[in-house]
Amino acid sequence: MQTLGIALLGSGRMAHVYGPKINAHPGLRLSVVYNPNLLSAEAIAAQYGGEALGDLDQALAHPDVDVVLIATPANTHLEYVIAAAQAGKPIFCEKPLDQSLDRAEQCLDVLKAHPVPFMLGFNRRFDPNITALQRAVRAGELGPLSFMMSTSREPAPPPIAYVKASGGYFVDATIHDIDLMCWIAGERPVEVFASGSCLTDPAIGELGDYDTTMTTLKMPSGCLVHINNSRRCAYGFDQRIEAFGEAGMLQTSNQRDEDLIRWGAQATKAHAPLKHFFLERYDASFSHALDEFYNAITEGRAPSCTVRDGRDALAIALACQEACKSGALVKLDWI
Amino acid sequence: MQTLGIALLGSGRMAHVYGPKINAHPGLRLSVVYNPNLLSAEAIAAQYGGEALGDLDQALAHPDVDVVLIATPANTHLEYVIAAAQAGKPIFCEKPLDQSLDRAEQCLDVLKAHPVPFMLGFNRRFDPNITALQRAVRAGELGPLSFMMSTSREPAPPPIAYVKASGGYFVDATIHDIDLMCWIAGERPVEVFASGSCLTDPAIGELGDYDTTMTTLKMPSGCLVHINNSRRCAYGFDQRIEAFGEAGMLQTSNQRDEDLIRWGAQATKAHAPLKHFFLERYDASFSHALDEFYNAITEGRAPSCTVRDGRDALAIALACQEACKSGALVKLDWI
Amino acid sequence: MQTLGIALLGSGRMAHVYGPKINAHPGLRLSVVYNPNLLSAEAIAAQYGGEALGDLDQALAHPDVDVVLIATPANTHLEYVIAAAQAGKPIFCEKPLDQSLDRAEQCLDVLKAHPVPFMLGFNRRFDPNITALQRAVRAGELGPLSFMMSTSREPAPPPIAYVKASGGYFVDATIHDIDLMCWIAGERPVEVFASGSCLTDPAIGELGDYDTTMTTLKMPSGCLVHINNSRRCAYGFDQRIEAFGEAGMLQTSNQRDEDLIRWGAQATKAHAPLKHFFLERYDASFSHALDEFYNAITEGRAPSCTVRDGRDALAIALACQEACKSGALVKLDWI
Amino acid sequence: MQTLGIALLGSGRMAHVYGPKINAHPGLRLSVVYNPNLLSAEAIAAQYGGEALGDLDQALAHPDVDVVLIATPANTHLEYVIAAAQAGKPIFCEKPLDQSLDRAEQCLDVLKAHPVPFMLGFNRRFDPNITALQRAVRAGELGPLSFMMSTSREPAPPPIAYVKASGGYFVDATIHDIDLMCWIAGERPVEVFASGSCLTDPAIGELGDYDTTMTTLKMPSGCLVHINNSRRCAYGFDQRIEAFGEAGMLQTSNQRDEDLIRWGAQATKAHAPLKHFFLERYDASFSHALDEFYNAITEGRAPSCTVRDGRDALAIALACQEACKSGALVKLDWI
Repeated sequence: MQTLGIALLGSGRMAHVYGPKINAHPGLRLSVVYNPNLLSAEAIAAQYGGEALGDLDQALAHPDVDVVLIATPANTHLEYVIAAAQAGKPIFCEKPLDQSLDRAEQCLDVLKAHPVPFMLGFNRRFDPNITALQRAVRAGELGPLSFMMSTSREPAPPPIAYVKASGGYFVDATIHDIDLMCWIAGERPVEVFASGSCLTDPAIGELGDYDTTMTTLKMPSGCLVHINNSRRCAYGFDQRIEAFGEAGMLQTSNQRDEDLIRWGAQATKAHAPLKHFFLERYDASFSHALDEFYNAITEGRAPSCTVRDGRDALAIALACQEACKSGALVKLDWI
Repeated sequence: MQTLGIALLGSGRMAHVYGPKINAHPGLRLSVVYNPNLLSAEAIAAQYGGEALGDLDQALAHPDVDVVLIATPANTHLEYVIAAAQAGKPIFCEKPLDQSLDRAEQCLDVLKAHPVPFMLGFNRRFDPNITALQRAVRAGELGPLSFMMSTSREPAPPPIAYVKASGGYFVDATIHDIDLMCWIAGERPVEVFASGSCLTDPAIGELGDYDTTMTTLKMPSGCLVHINNSRRCAYGFDQRIEAFGEAGMLQTSNQRDEDLIRWGAQATKAHAPLKHFFLERYDASFSHALDEFYNAITEGRAPSCTVRDGRDALAIALACQEACKSGALVKLDWI
Repeated sequence: MQTLGIALLGSGRMAHVYGPKINAHPGLRLSVVYNPNLLSAEAIAAQYGGEALGDLDQALAHPDVDVVLIATPANTHLEYVIAAAQAGKPIFCEKPLDQSLDRAEQCLDVLKAHPVPFMLGFNRRFDPNITALQRAVRAGELGPLSFMMSTSREPAPPPIAYVKASGGYFVDATIHDIDLMCWIAGERPVEVFASGSCLTDPAIGELGDYDTTMTTLKMPSGCLVHINNSRRCAYGFDQRIEAFGEAGMLQTSNQRDEDLIRWGAQATKAHAPLKHFFLERYDASFSHALDEFYNAITEGRAPSCTVRDGRDALAIALACQEACKSGALVKLDWI
Repeated sequence: MQTLGIALLGSGRMAHVYGPKINAHPGLRLSVVYNPNLLSAEAIAAQYGGEALGDLDQALAHPDVDVVLIATPANTHLEYVIAAAQAGKPIFCEKPLDQSLDRAEQCLDVLKAHPVPFMLGFNRRFDPNITALQRAVRAGELGPLSFMMSTSREPAPPPIAYVKASGGYFVDATIHDIDLMCWIAGERPVEVFASGSCLTDPAIGELGDYDTTMTTLKMPSGCLVHINNSRRCAYGFDQRIEAFGEAGMLQTSNQRDEDLIRWGAQATKAHAPLKHFFLERYDASFSHALDEFYNAITEGRAPSCTVRDGRDALAIALACQEACKSGALVKLDWI
């Protein structure tokens, strides 16, 4: 089995997600952990292995580095995409591509000039249930689609500093649902509308952001898409997708750590708690996303989740944001 | 137990719904069936009892008539409301109040001038599950609401003649969901947006109408409401409500004639079919609506579902239609 | 529609069940309420109608009495079956036929000598879900049966006086499950085994009775049947049937007054409470049992639930009791 | 992290289960694969690593062997337990301990004489759902137990050669349910009864064996236990446990590869197929069982699933077989 040495760029929260998954993957090894702040890189390297480096050129030129995994803050992805592409290394880039459409498009340009294999980490596509739903829809099991719904509600609002740097709720969270809806339906919306409220923390509203949103997308086929997002959910991380077409409906189910059903005097029939948040719920999907990257590189084909997918999802998320702020439907033109 | 003699105005489809339910109610009796087409009235009277009459004045002046039930075509409700109110008879009026906002408002004026008890037949409020959900929400079980969702999908499109006379899909169908959402949340929307497609029968689209719609309402509290309606549903009459607030979520379930679960080689675990359509699904709610009317009249109080509720639901439905046609958010002002 | 005048014999708990159901049935009327204690009969007649009588001959000879409904204590059924059969009146007899196999067999003899139509009130057969399951099994939907399971657990133990007069837990409760299992499978067991414990109230054990039992029946086809009964159930009246055959499995579901699903911080997903006890759970089945009786009499055919069914279920229940006390398998011979 | 070198004895079906799991475990390595038929050992070693050996003494004396995993045919376990214990190596032994109670007891004697750490591979105890249920029961969540039920149905009968060598259905399959029921309840039965049929393949019956069984255990506390086993199940590998006590009920759920719910015209609401058989359903539990063994050895404590547990489960399974053949309750005495 061919093994690929990885340079992991970034040593924050996502490094803790990818570190163990790289180690568990039989074809990947953690060669380098890079952070301009060397101390931070060293902490990750101490925990998961690899050589800690504070110099980017050195990291990319490291003899044991075959591919690059970008897990730095979202607004720095572009510079690392440029450097890695110029160095000729295949790239796995954590989502979002960027928070700015302009910089996202620069990524496309860079990759056109330096066509290295590139995969965007929209990991939810690789969740087994969502993958199965997408396959069933695309195989025509439902016939033409009428509706798609995505419910995504987080257990609790993040710290306000996170919100500030997030690019706004549509770019930070709705973008996942947007990507899934387009990927499942196989089309991109021509009309976008959204409404938003701030109900959990007034500080979010003071930033001009929302914590409670509803989004409507209209697809060229006439299929209508509904997305609802909330930064607060008393019962855990609520993740449900529904696809409804001429021949019927498909639904994914929420997931639990164990499946015990409890019958008692208070709650006659109660289910075990939901998986707490995205690390738990989408644990397998992060691994499967790395599988896809590894398989594409070693099979010499392009990874299935492209830079264009990342750019388009961002464009749609920004259109939702604009619609929400202006109260007017936003039309999108796809050439 | 006091009994009330009913004059049933109209002898179409809804007369077949109300006839047996009047007979089964211990406090109601069918005294008169009225239709200007006397033959039609006679057919209903032969089946369910009561005296068939083709003359409205005679029907309202009949000595055995205490109250009036209007089940005529929607665009004739106003004339019967006027006549019954002038005759001083309590009125139960099938929904919608009218398809024209102007005429709906004339109903309000008439009842201001002739203040007889009046109840609009928004029967779904009286479905035991929906009633229980509304009570739980209003009792604060969920805390402040973030989202409400209503899914209402019909098994198959009606004949095109029905669609032509329906006032449009929003006025014909979405109005039910609108009334329920406002009644459960206890507020009326300040902003309305809707999208529509025609996916089942091009003839519907040629009328300028839709068979597939998504509606977003924004409430003054910030609660966001989603409604989806489809004139086609392969698996039966899909009726689901979801309310989501700070403390959790409440959902109603779809209903089946029997609850057998089948485990077999093809479908590992399958449930019995859904109730077919509104007559089956909301059978009990029609009865409970008559109960509410009877109880209100005999207890000397106003029925809980008012002419104002009917006027407001219509105003919101028409605003949805306008938003869907114009592609622009419509604002609503409530004085 | 032909109407049948009923003489209701007995004025205890079951009179309150049948009284309203007779009044709601369009073809039945309550003509006479009989109890040797006239005051007790008068209370029922005052509430539900009919003439109160303390004399049995007078009750049976009443000109408005077409049929007899026996709802007296179980150990008095025989004397009323004799009197009604001699008077030539069709009989609806509440279950069990008797607690003594000897007297149950006398009922068969009496009805052979005076062959009036007779129906035993095993009402659970007339529950829509159980009826649907039986029909599916008998139509061969599962192929040959391997297993059948019946779970029947009561919310709380009855007063000890009730237990004393009950004939023992197998005759009082398990007999229902036995009848259903035989009726669904279409065969009667050739071997019987049972185990019992006393876990809720030592006073039940002191009577030599049980409150917690497990019963195994072996059918001639080789199908194995499991029944579990408990006099205590924290979450309500648990009633489930499972049939498992070559082609799959059928299960009935527990029932609730409303079907709300609650998602909250404590119980992530919880269902509305179960129907409390048999009056609520089997409400419809009592009505449908009266329908079957009415239909059989007016159509001139024998009711579907026979005196022989009652005798056989009792024989099996007594065999279970014997097996439980002796710790030995009991064989049954059916000629 | 301390690593333990394993000598895997046996190279049949279970070697394919344990091989990949040993490789995936960070603290275990496959050092030796032993089979007196060296060719067979070599095939496993080629696939999963380790040195293939045909000589037992050499395997146990291999410098890289710290512990022994016995995965040989059930009736050879004793000889390997003796050899490994004499060599002073900790033992993980696949279930059952043996098919003969006499030889199972010799295992106890050997381990008393040579007290090496020993773990029996009752892997189902390590399934996360079953573990969670056991913990909840033992923590008193249900109060005193009234009932326990275990349903275990295999998709299809094994080849008749497998049945011949299986020790009978109770020893081959029911022993799993017996072990779980005793482990969850924390007690061993004082009375045992069982019934059996042969419904899938007459060749099984000709061997004097069963493919369809029902078992009743009575615990000293009065708790009654029901087990049903079938060698045929049209809808997959049906695995359900139910525990019912004073305070309520706990149920495990069946498991599926993905959780899609399909709503369509034929089956209104259908669930994805069940996991096919034990390798899929209990995949995680095999891994967790190895974890427990590794943790116990490295922490210097005794593994939680003992040789005594294996001997007792076998004694109970044999008592069930005796009860089934004789038609008489069998009493068990525990000193």
